[in-house]
Amino acid sequence: MPIRIEDIEAARKRIGPYIKTTPMGESRSSSERLNTETLLKLENQQLTGSFKVRGSFNKMLCLSKDELNKGIVASSAGNHAQGVAHAATTLGAKARVVMPETSPLVKVMATQRYGAEVILKGRIYDESYAYARELEAEHGYTFVHPYEDPLIIAGQGTLGLEIMEQLPDVDSVVIPIGGGGLISGVATAVKALRPSCKIYGVVSSASPGMQQMFDGGPVEPPSPALTIADGISVKKPSKVMYDDYISKLVDDIIDVTDEEIAESIVFFLERAKTVVEGSGAVVMAAAEKAGWNLGKKCCLVLSGGNIDLNLISKVIERGMSKRGRLIRLTVIVPDRPGTMMKLTNAIAEKGANILDVKHDRVRQGVKLSETAIEFLLEIRSEQHAAELQDAFRALGGRI
Amino acid sequence: MPIRIEDIEAARKRIGPYIKTTPMGESRSSSERLNTETLLKLENQQLTGSFKVRGSFNKMLCLSKDELNKGIVASSAGNHAQGVAHAATTLGAKARVVMPETSPLVKVMATQRYGAEVILKGRIYDESYAYARELEAEHGYTFVHPYEDPLIIAGQGTLGLEIMEQLPDVDSVVIPIGGGGLISGVATAVKALRPSCKIYGVVSSASPGMQQMFDGGPVEPPSPALTIADGISVKKPSKVMYDDYISKLVDDIIDVTDEEIAESIVFFLERAKTVVEGSGAVVMAAAEKAGWNLGKKCCLVLSGGNIDLNLISKVIERGMSKRGRLIRLTVIVPDRPGTMMKLTNAIAEKGANILDVKHDRVRQGVKLSETAIEFLLEIRSEQHAAELQDAFRALGGRI
Repeated sequence: MPIRIEDIEAARKRIGPYIKTTPMGESRSSSERLNTETLLKLENQQLTGSFKVRGSFNKMLCLSKDELNKGIVASSAGNHAQGVAHAATTLGAKARVVMPETSPLVKVMATQRYGAEVILKGRIYDESYAYARELEAEHGYTFVHPYEDPLIIAGQGTLGLEIMEQLPDVDSVVIPIGGGGLISGVATAVKALRPSCKIYGVVSSASPGMQQMFDGGPVEPPSPALTIADGISVKKPSKVMYDDYISKLVDDIIDVTDEEIAESIVFFLERAKTVVEGSGAVVMAAAEKAGWNLGKKCCLVLSGGNIDLNLISKVIERGMSKRGRLIRLTVIVPDRPGTMMKLTNAIAEKGANILDVKHDRVRQGVKLSETAIEFLLEIRSEQHAAELQDAFRALGGRI
Repeated sequence: MPIRIEDIEAARKRIGPYIKTTPMGESRSSSERLNTETLLKLENQQLTGSFKVRGSFNKMLCLSKDELNKGIVASSAGNHAQGVAHAATTLGAKARVVMPETSPLVKVMATQRYGAEVILKGRIYDESYAYARELEAEHGYTFVHPYEDPLIIAGQGTLGLEIMEQLPDVDSVVIPIGGGGLISGVATAVKALRPSCKIYGVVSSASPGMQQMFDGGPVEPPSPALTIADGISVKKPSKVMYDDYISKLVDDIIDVTDEEIAESIVFFLERAKTVVEGSGAVVMAAAEKAGWNLGKKCCLVLSGGNIDLNLISKVIERGMSKRGRLIRLTVIVPDRPGTMMKLTNAIAEKGANILDVKHDRVRQGVKLSETAIEFLLEIRSEQHAAELQDAFRALGGRI
């Protein structure tokens, strides 16, 4: 049976002392972009950097002393691992988190920093999950599921209560969907208190299962490719979450691509000065392109901020390139002294900024007397790029 | 004559409708790092991304209709440009901002986006300044100085009033010093309302003039090198600001290096999930190393968030390397098939992550039968780096 608002209110009393009430940030740049007053629920500033601690605390605070003493087990390659680790450690329980062997070092270290024992087991998440369930059966640990658990859903729903207090006249809330725990909990709270408020969900194009189920189409397996929204990648959408919550409470779901997500991450960094991970940044990309009725006040839920810093530079490049602010321009020129000077003069004259230069003498189509030069340039617009190409051609270069 | 708290209160009434009251963010990771309860004044979320709009609005709201109609002129390569542009445009005045010819494209574009006409003139800031004063004399524009102006100082001081409301029992406030307008205004407000609160200032090691003046030593010219704290680089500390405010109101000043600033930027990105520019991030580096008496509650003023995104990736690399989390490791090995496989096997066994690989066959000391391979690796610690070096040596590589 689905949870009710009372379960969420009870969860809030329980977890109140252990979590942050995260700020609802005004954002003029977001409002301008979406043409309506837009506020950011800054859950990226939650303890452990995501909403996951809410559910973890609610679950563990309902365990008996005996269960806590026996210990906790979970499987996750991401934010759930840190949420479980932090909640368990705070409550004096030992947590074991099974993570895929290929997990990024930074996530392993973060989970350890929050006090959990990390067990690297399995090539993919499913194998880690299976091993965690084995440990549960063998040792009597309590397994904490990332979403299919009423206590977890009620915990995540506390974020919805905060939205209703901070922004009681909200007309629309946009929420990322991975397993569906966050949107189910938040929608339960919001629809109970303000039935007219629209709830919109966002999935990643790399893992669009829940959207396909919502649209009544066949559910395809997710792309095996890596996505920058790894936090909302699930192998298969949950039928339970769909039947009990999403089909009833969510008004629409759309998917967004990695390109769009990268651009949104850059937008939040550059304009809102806030660090949002791919799985959280989806909301801006979706709200902009979906054509939803956002009403007079829209709340975007920035669900987490745990982006691998090494990824940020790649994302910045991709996001800026999507906006026509960054371009890789390769020109083939005679390999003799003075050539580079002419090219860099042309670039300076056009007011572009050189970020990187590479020579490539063995590229296909490059003669022995020539070299290919690849410039990474910061530019104003696509028009600006075309002008640079013309200038290079005028100097005898081939593009 | 120095401004008084009444001037700041008047400024606040004046500019209230035009600016944001920025949040005072809790930060558990900052508190842990400084061993005392630490809150972040998130002025990086101010309109235009820095505190500069406060002073600009206060100044322009005191101009007559006639003066506004004649127009505004300013010179700046940074946040002051955007603050002036935004305030002038909002109040219906035309602003001309003179910027050095070498200004980054992104700052020029941002200033234009806020509605100012950008005039690129001068190789360095001083020449831009001189030209702006020429325009003032010639056309009767009002020149808006970045700090030596009581209305500007009172405007910046409104940030101090917000601190006192948001955190009335604050024991210490740490503030960046460029020209000194921000610290002078904030210190005036804070010391008036809570004389026991310590005010600490931070300068960049590249431009330590105000600290040298404060310490009574000789004032040396700033380093001509570029610094990531460009927003607080000044050619020469202002005697007026020192005599009227800083000597009387500031308890101590220290300087921080670019390395330390880079690490602090990374800290704020990774742990507080917030984007802080170099000139703002100085406060964490300083508060950690200065040995100041921060008391029970410390407020760090994050004065701005306008960091060039292209700079972020460089900063991340530097900041992570300072923490022993990233290393460039070059090994010279025989240039034959299979060598790379052995090296990458060793790296995988040690659990390090390869971010980039480069071959260099023409490096000094590399024989014709050899190649140098440079790995960029994500590692756990310096100890981890030493283990990798040993593993490479065991495979016959030279480090």
